Amino acid sequence: MAERGGPAARAVLQQCLQARLQVKPAEEEAEAQFVQIERGMVIYICFFKGATDDLLPKMASTLLNLRLCESDSGKMVSVSELPGDLLIVPQATLGGKAKGRALQYHDNIGKEDGLRLYAAFVSLCEERLAAASVKHGTYGNRQVLKLDTNGPYTHLVDF
Amino acid sequence: MAERGGPAARAVLQQCLQARLQVKPAEEEAEAQFVQIERGMVIYICFFKGATDDLLPKMASTLLNLRLCESDSGKMVSVSELPGDLLIVPQATLGGKAKGRALQYHDNIGKEDGLRLYAAFVSLCEERLAAASVKHGTYGNRQVLKLDTNGPYTHLVDF
Repeated sequence: MAERGGPAARAVLQQCLQARLQVKPAEEEAEAQFVQIERGMVIYICFFKGATDDLLPKMASTLLNLRLCESDSGKMVSVSELPGDLLIVPQATLGGKAKGRALQYHDNIGKEDGLRLYAAFVSLCEERLAAASVKHGTYGNRQVLKLDTNGPYTHLVDF
Repeated sequence: MAERGGPAARAVLQQCLQARLQVKPAEEEAEAQFVQIERGMVIYICFFKGATDDLLPKMASTLLNLRLCESDSGKMVSVSELPGDLLIVPQATLGGKAKGRALQYHDNIGKEDGLRLYAAFVSLCEERLAAASVKHGTYGNRQVLKLDTNGPYTHLVDF
C-alpha cells in the first residue's frame, strides 16, 4: 500500500491462447512491429504514486505463482507451471477514477518513475519465467492488442 | 457499497474494434454459437454479496456515459455518443481475492441473485443503447472471447 492509502500497483490478468501486441506503430517507410505470445497470460499493469522498487519481487512472485491458468487436464496451475507465455502490457488507464463523466488519473505515478518500475518488473519476470516466452509492450505507447482466449478469466490484483 | 464494506459490483471495461464471444458451446450435433460486436466496448461484470437491483440504473448510466471511447477525430466520448456496440460478459473471476497461491470467491454473490442482476443489467443497457447493438454472454458459461483492439484502454470501475 502506498502512503495515500490506495494501492501502489494494480494488475489485471487475462488468460489467452494467443495475444499480439503492437510495439512500434507504422511510420512512413516502416511497417508496424508486433510481439506475439501463444498460450499463457496477459498482465496489464499500472503503478500509482508511492510505488517503489521494493514492491516488484512480491508482485512478480504473486502474479507468476497464482493458480490462474487451466492445464490440459482442467487443473488450475500457475503460468510458471503451465508453462505458459507472458505478455506484459503497460496500462495507465487502470489507475483512472471516474469524476462526473471523465476519468481522472491524479493517483498515477509520474512517467519517469513509471517507466523505471515497468522496465524493472519486466526484467524480473524474464528472469523468473526463463523457460517461457516473456514479451512486453512499449511504455507510453498506445497498446494495440489482439487477444484470443478460451475464456479470459479476468482477474484483478491490487498491491 | 455493500454492507461488508467492499464494492457491490465491479466492472472492467475494454475498448474494441471487434469482439466475438461464444454463447453456446459445441455439442455432439450442433456447432458452437457466437455473438459478435464491431467497434465499441466490452464490459466484464461481477456482482458481490449485498448487491441489489437499486444499483443497476446507476451502473448502466455510469458505464454507458463515461468518456472512454476514442472518436474518429481522437476526442474521448462515451460508448453512447460514439455510437458504439456493447458486449456484456459475466466474469465472476473479477471477485477473486488471492489467498496464498489460490483465488477465493467468498464475496461473490450467489448464482441465482447473480443471474437475476446480470439479466436486469443487460436489459437496462439494451433499453438505453437502443440505437446500437448490445450483445451478451450466457451467465455461468465459460466466456470464450476473441478481442481485436486499437488499444484496449482497460478501466476498472467499482460500485
